Amino acid sequence: MGRRDGTDDTDPHDSEIVWAVMQALAKHGYADLTTKKIAAEYSRGESALYYHYDSKDDLICAFLDSSLDWFDQELDAIDAADPDERLFEACEILIGNVLDPDDGGEYAGLYIALAELSAHAPYNETFRERLVKQQRSVIEKLAAILDDGIEDGTFRPVDPEATAAFLVVTCDSIIDHAVLLGMDDVASMIRAQLFAFVRSNLLAADGPDELR
Amino acid sequence: MGRRDGTDDTDPHDSEIVWAVMQALAKHGYADLTTKKIAAEYSRGESALYYHYDSKDDLICAFLDSSLDWFDQELDAIDAADPDERLFEACEILIGNVLDPDDGGEYAGLYIALAELSAHAPYNETFRERLVKQQRSVIEKLAAILDDGIEDGTFRPVDPEATAAFLVVTCDSIIDHAVLLGMDDVASMIRAQLFAFVRSNLLAADGPDELR
Repeated sequence: MGRRDGTDDTDPHDSEIVWAVMQALAKHGYADLTTKKIAAEYSRGESALYYHYDSKDDLICAFLDSSLDWFDQELDAIDAADPDERLFEACEILIGNVLDPDDGGEYAGLYIALAELSAHAPYNETFRERLVKQQRSVIEKLAAILDDGIEDGTFRPVDPEATAAFLVVTCDSIIDHAVLLGMDDVASMIRAQLFAFVRSNLLAADGPDELR
Repeated sequence: MGRRDGTDDTDPHDSEIVWAVMQALAKHGYADLTTKKIAAEYSRGESALYYHYDSKDDLICAFLDSSLDWFDQELDAIDAADPDERLFEACEILIGNVLDPDDGGEYAGLYIALAELSAHAPYNETFRERLVKQQRSVIEKLAAILDDGIEDGTFRPVDPEATAAFLVVTCDSIIDHAVLLGMDDVASMIRAQLFAFVRSNLLAADGPDELR
């Protein structure tokens, strides 16, 4: 999961392994995941996998850590100056390209893998801790954008954290409906509602009129 | 999963079996679910289970069918006359009691079980079809409430289906964050945002002022 701009500062072996974990999780689901199936997605074979990691859960944790880093990096890389543009871009990153008919599928594996692990979170504290950390980090980053926009008058004086949480979970739902249930029609409607919410509830009345 | 008012028109054997499937799914997760574990939650034992159902997947489908019926019945049983009250009640039903500290846990098993099966939906068409049917049915029922309210002037002239989808998936997210990740603080904030959205975006300006 290198950055979209092609740069990546993690060990290339680790990146390849994390990619293999994600592919295997997305293909087989957590219920049927084995180290052998992860190795089948990894060019260096099973023994090389064991050289780096002790167990299946270790491998999954490496994937979760990498996913957290990836979302953090993507959100930090937004370079638009205006808080409203930054907020729209952040939402697009969280939604991924799951609704783009020309480009769908590239990130589907990532979201399927994360959904699998979220469903398993009640049974695995280590996974749960990482998923909670990722969710809190994403909410914090959106709240910071909202904070900036409230300060400079772009946004209304809403509660930044509560609003950020509302936006993040709505993006999660768009993903779930598109990727898990194949309900692209519903996912598209929710996406439209989400951006309408930002326009009508968050943008200050005297702010930019028609961003998109 | 009998109705909250205690009535239930399904075969009591089936109800007991469905309850056992839900308990076993919630306790062990789909990854570790076996017919033996379902039988351990069923008072009549494993052979009685096989008398009614052929396989683990058959048992899970019975649970999914029953869950669909349960949500349909709960939503149909709302007897408030005003569309705004009906809409608030419908959202409360979808959120369940997962955020009530005095009453949490009763429905947690239901939601954990449904989340497990949703995460598994990409790998199982039979589960996916049932989950999609349930989601579409719930969205349709909320859209009907919105339709009534638009007609009598309670609500603004929004798109009923898109708005219903937005509300339903937000309720799903509240559940996921409370039950899967244990992020009750985030779930509570989203719940508050959801009801604020209904008040400020859906209720007509000349409608009832302070419902809650």
